[in-house]
Amino acid sequence: MTDKIRIAIAGYGNLGRGTEAAIAQTSDMELKAVFTRRDPGGVTLLDPSIPVYSLDDVGNHQGEIDVLILCGGSKNDLPEQGPALAALFNTVDSYDTHARIPQYFEAVDEAAQAGDNIAIISVGWDPGLFSLNRLFGEAILPEGATYTFWGKGLSQGHSDAVRRVPGVKGGVQYTVPVPEAVDRVRSGAQPELSTREKHKRDCYVVLEEGADAEQVRQAIVTMPDYFADYDTTVTFISEEELRAEHAAMPHGGFVIRTGTTGAGEKQVMEYSLTLESNPGFTSSVLVAYARAAHRLKQAGQTGARTVFDIAPGLLSPKSPAQLRKELL
Amino acid sequence: MTDKIRIAIAGYGNLGRGTEAAIAQTSDMELKAVFTRRDPGGVTLLDPSIPVYSLDDVGNHQGEIDVLILCGGSKNDLPEQGPALAALFNTVDSYDTHARIPQYFEAVDEAAQAGDNIAIISVGWDPGLFSLNRLFGEAILPEGATYTFWGKGLSQGHSDAVRRVPGVKGGVQYTVPVPEAVDRVRSGAQPELSTREKHKRDCYVVLEEGADAEQVRQAIVTMPDYFADYDTTVTFISEEELRAEHAAMPHGGFVIRTGTTGAGEKQVMEYSLTLESNPGFTSSVLVAYARAAHRLKQAGQTGARTVFDIAPGLLSPKSPAQLRKELL
Repeated sequence: MTDKIRIAIAGYGNLGRGTEAAIAQTSDMELKAVFTRRDPGGVTLLDPSIPVYSLDDVGNHQGEIDVLILCGGSKNDLPEQGPALAALFNTVDSYDTHARIPQYFEAVDEAAQAGDNIAIISVGWDPGLFSLNRLFGEAILPEGATYTFWGKGLSQGHSDAVRRVPGVKGGVQYTVPVPEAVDRVRSGAQPELSTREKHKRDCYVVLEEGADAEQVRQAIVTMPDYFADYDTTVTFISEEELRAEHAAMPHGGFVIRTGTTGAGEKQVMEYSLTLESNPGFTSSVLVAYARAAHRLKQAGQTGARTVFDIAPGLLSPKSPAQLRKELL
Repeated sequence: MTDKIRIAIAGYGNLGRGTEAAIAQTSDMELKAVFTRRDPGGVTLLDPSIPVYSLDDVGNHQGEIDVLILCGGSKNDLPEQGPALAALFNTVDSYDTHARIPQYFEAVDEAAQAGDNIAIISVGWDPGLFSLNRLFGEAILPEGATYTFWGKGLSQGHSDAVRRVPGVKGGVQYTVPVPEAVDRVRSGAQPELSTREKHKRDCYVVLEEGADAEQVRQAIVTMPDYFADYDTTVTFISEEELRAEHAAMPHGGFVIRTGTTGAGEKQVMEYSLTLESNPGFTSSVLVAYARAAHRLKQAGQTGARTVFDIAPGLLSPKSPAQLRKELL
């Protein structure tokens, strides 16, 4: 006998693996299956007793799963998978292309309503927990300014850009908040900060044999959109160093709201995350929101939602009375 | 013509005055009246055009008010006013006697349901925003530990205790987090911390003429419950210094959740507030939740709620679509 929430995962990269581990840390959920676009036989889970199926067959498993957590990427996977899977299952995803969220929401909402499902989109820390803190900040301190800083953290998109430069064999890029800017914001001064003043970019690069280091450096630091507007450092390292010291995926950052109330008193609200593993944390957020998705569906709700629409109590395995007693 | 949310305030001390100022900072709310237990003629508002009535007459104003914000104290006012007023109006309050929240919730819930009203209790920063962050912390990182630090901030209860000591003419008490403890927690070490290790207490005292300073100091630092379990400093100052340097009501603190995910990666979530005025900030939180109360009532809901039950989007004057576009 079990009344655990039955979860499945679609997509088994870093985020999928993190989600499997995060489910194992809960006491009210169980992982029923993983769906992959690869050959299922070639996918090895942390727990080998859990079945792996082809994503093509996901429609045959509708009755067995309460919530499907979508662990595909925002660029190529989710624009198609998000609506398609929300038509079949309650879903949670981490769609993070900020500019396209409104149209993604519409597409998923239509599919989820048609399928009588709940779909919580854009869950994670940004979008996600950082978004919530931006909202709390401006709702509570309407006369003020909000600042988001990212890092120190590995940026996947910027690392990819570095690796596309001719002469680069491998490399990573860290986004780093400028400490002086963070301090000025925290002081409540509400400064206007340029792109360059807020963040700097540190690159660690392995050169291909015979490549010209200075030429590679110039190609990186002058790259438009990615690096030209920032103070960028390029450090050349060996392949061994890259493997040994830059394999982790740390990230984090700050959301700071400063404002003034009544008689001009300065008030500062700050939210910060320091993450040793970005996918490990993001997947933990996805799993907590999967609990909320299940409960909303049980309450008869359907359609797309974001973190803004979810009462925080729905994230916890504890009852409302227990939450009031223990955490309020 | 107006379709602003019509707010009234019950109780006009520091919190009531802060609430009046916070309403003036919104564009979708208007203050319709203040109710007081004092002689209404003796109460001067920031905006003298707003009527002040006796709290005894509040029942005559039911049709004129969408949400009544209760600004009385948790010790003497709210246990009685909370249920009585939730029977008549949608209410928001800052009831903060943590140990009695469950029974207060039940009493308010019954009254609010009987009156077809919504009542959001225990709103502010602790209970309130800090409670939310304790919940997010343990829901997202189930394997971890949560720490709440308060201060540096003026504690009303401990200041009162100091002022009751024979020989004390006036004084204030600041609660101060111990920096070494905060640093250990931030490191992710999950230390077990005693009361003394987490906070210290700094008192600034004006002596009555002829009082024995050492005797007063001893009476303070050995006072059970309030000071005996802490490292407490007592600094003697003049009445002029007390007025000039200790009239503000700063406060704040931190909620830190540290935990490990998947492969043992350390993750740290931190929420902090640095407030020049505790009542100025608390009242701003009350006003944001008054917006939510109005919307819940419009959606046909009744009964008591806490911050755990409120979808964050309801706090913002922006529409869901606008929030997704601008803040997600």
